[in-house]
Amino acid sequence: MLSNGKCPKNILSIKDALEAVEGRWKLLILFSLSTGTKRFKELGREVSWITDKTLSRELKLLESNKLITRKVFDTFPPAVEYTITEHGKSLEKVIEELHYWGLAHRKEVLGK
Amino acid sequence: MLSNGKCPKNILSIKDALEAVEGRWKLLILFSLSTGTKRFKELGREVSWITDKTLSRELKLLESNKLITRKVFDTFPPAVEYTITEHGKSLEKVIEELHYWGLAHRKEVLGK
Repeated sequence: MLSNGKCPKNILSIKDALEAVEGRWKLLILFSLSTGTKRFKELGREVSWITDKTLSRELKLLESNKLITRKVFDTFPPAVEYTITEHGKSLEKVIEELHYWGLAHRKEVLGK
Repeated sequence: MLSNGKCPKNILSIKDALEAVEGRWKLLILFSLSTGTKRFKELGREVSWITDKTLSRELKLLESNKLITRKVFDTFPPAVEYTITEHGKSLEKVIEELHYWGLAHRKEVLGK
């Protein structure tokens, strides 16, 4: 393994990564934005069950972690668009590995 | 990305994976066991700052998720050994990707 059994620095980076994507919404939102730039209402429709309040909060957190950008257009009413950043896209490998391991884990532990 | 923007099944497997390794202790314990079978006291020494009570709880959770095995020897006092399973070892890729992304994320967001 990476750490040869002990290395708090490795743990720190893993903790950083887990914190940036914690909860189920952030990954769903990034998934949705991975197919293209979207407006707030579009995201709300695609990310089912999310409330406007939660979506707004999660988008702010993703923006502060530089995983997405927010652009406001000077129209009436003002249009707001969200786009995944290169940094956000770089999460793909992590998500893929988590996905595959999660599938194997479900089989191993739950037998399905 | 994996989901093409929407696929709750992918999210489910990712959620499973995150739940199985949540917290900082489980990964540290798996790191420690990746170098070989250890006794409870040895683990306690290697995984710094962990209390016996927490270590005991985390080992049980890891065992219930089939990430480690526990073997009791019929000696006096009884010896207990913990070993990482093949399933536990299969987490390596996830941990590696999390580690590398966490490093990049720290640079991107915190500039260090």
